[in-house]
Amino acid sequence: MLIIGERINATRKKIAEALRAKDKAFIQKEARIQMEAGAGYLDLNAGLGSGDESEGLRWLVETVQEAGYTDICLDSANSAVLKTCLPLVKGKVMINSINAEKSKLEAMLPLFEGYTGKVVGLTMDDRGIPGDVATRVEIAEKLVSGLVARKVKVEDIYLDPLAQPVATDPNNGRIFLEAIVAIKQAIPGVKTTCGLSNVSFGLPERRMLNRYFLALAIGCGLDSALIDPTDAGMIAAALSAEGLMGLDQFCIGYLTAFRAGKIKA
Amino acid sequence: MLIIGERINATRKKIAEALRAKDKAFIQKEARIQMEAGAGYLDLNAGLGSGDESEGLRWLVETVQEAGYTDICLDSANSAVLKTCLPLVKGKVMINSINAEKSKLEAMLPLFEGYTGKVVGLTMDDRGIPGDVATRVEIAEKLVSGLVARKVKVEDIYLDPLAQPVATDPNNGRIFLEAIVAIKQAIPGVKTTCGLSNVSFGLPERRMLNRYFLALAIGCGLDSALIDPTDAGMIAAALSAEGLMGLDQFCIGYLTAFRAGKIKA
Repeated sequence: MLIIGERINATRKKIAEALRAKDKAFIQKEARIQMEAGAGYLDLNAGLGSGDESEGLRWLVETVQEAGYTDICLDSANSAVLKTCLPLVKGKVMINSINAEKSKLEAMLPLFEGYTGKVVGLTMDDRGIPGDVATRVEIAEKLVSGLVARKVKVEDIYLDPLAQPVATDPNNGRIFLEAIVAIKQAIPGVKTTCGLSNVSFGLPERRMLNRYFLALAIGCGLDSALIDPTDAGMIAAALSAEGLMGLDQFCIGYLTAFRAGKIKA
Repeated sequence: MLIIGERINATRKKIAEALRAKDKAFIQKEARIQMEAGAGYLDLNAGLGSGDESEGLRWLVETVQEAGYTDICLDSANSAVLKTCLPLVKGKVMINSINAEKSKLEAMLPLFEGYTGKVVGLTMDDRGIPGDVATRVEIAEKLVSGLVARKVKVEDIYLDPLAQPVATDPNNGRIFLEAIVAIKQAIPGVKTTCGLSNVSFGLPERRMLNRYFLALAIGCGLDSALIDPTDAGMIAAALSAEGLMGLDQFCIGYLTAFRAGKIKA
């Protein structure tokens, strides 16, 4: 599965500090450890909540590229920020994320004229995150049709049906998992992805719950996840589930990672 | 989910020794720790490969019942052994197992005249374990029809589609999981169960793989498992998956086990 390395995110205190202090060495190390651990893309998020996000994201892109890491997932919901940073990316590029809120989608879609990278689409609109599977599928179809009209390939679109906490509503996890299955049935060739941390909000041993949730999602066909690839327990969950589902032929990936000491029970 | 405690099994060296030595204290302790850890039934297997299985199983039943543990899963494929031991069980009873091998099934079915307990049915016949889902469903239907004809309730039948090692064939895990879904769709009300250890045969970190496989199976609707309930990692897998699937309302079971120190990340 495609792993998007989540660590370089300004909502994390140490990343915010490094971003403010322009600590290149710290950011480059964060890039290196994630790519060495198996990330396909580095998610870069410069949302400090104040200051110039565009300047911050530009600095992050340039900093990780200077160290040779050029496959980048630009993590911003601001079309102006993305417009500034997209031309800077030297390798493969991913946009994280668009959703179906009317004004935001209208601002975002023009970015995809001539775009050849990947994109994450969240199944929410002006009504918020729908409580049911069917409406998430409808929103997914709307996002895909807007992107495909601009010549984005279906297989480059990663839909995230947005997992919410099971502590709030016991159905939240199941609805997310059913939405993964339903979206892939409704839109042949489309991919799915997710962040994992919300589902376990409010419960003890969240990292463990997140690992089991990743396994369950892989069981439902999840293609990608925004995770910390240096978390050996999480990588173990992904490789175990892929091996058990027959997605890792003869468990080669599992065995290779085991021998390299990259997975942890 | 219904946990069948697997520890009292004569294929384990220490159990075989205790069975030969008639070490009541050891067997009773094995019963106690499993029931305290949350087992619904105690699986009792006296298959030493030599000697009188009937006498051995009778002794196991009497020994655990003497300590107050009377909900018993009689683990034998021998109809004569089961016939001897069934009348001894004072609490709830389960038979583990029947399958569709012609001569064995013919010998087993008369046991179910007037039987009011539960039963495990393995989806194999004289051809062995089928390589595909459809044939496992067919065998499941055959077993259920034979049992229902003898007035066993559908909801007391636990079908095990028999997980085989993914190291041998990458499709083995997926076929088992798809069979769980297909059997429950084909036979409304029927339950499913499984042993877990085969799937990880030949791979490193088998206990971890077994935990993820249990989670995946719960995601597919698994109702029961033959496991070691004192394995806190395995219980964590079961409770995590149940909470994430919305089967443990507001994660009460998970939180209770967490506070009691019964789960381990």
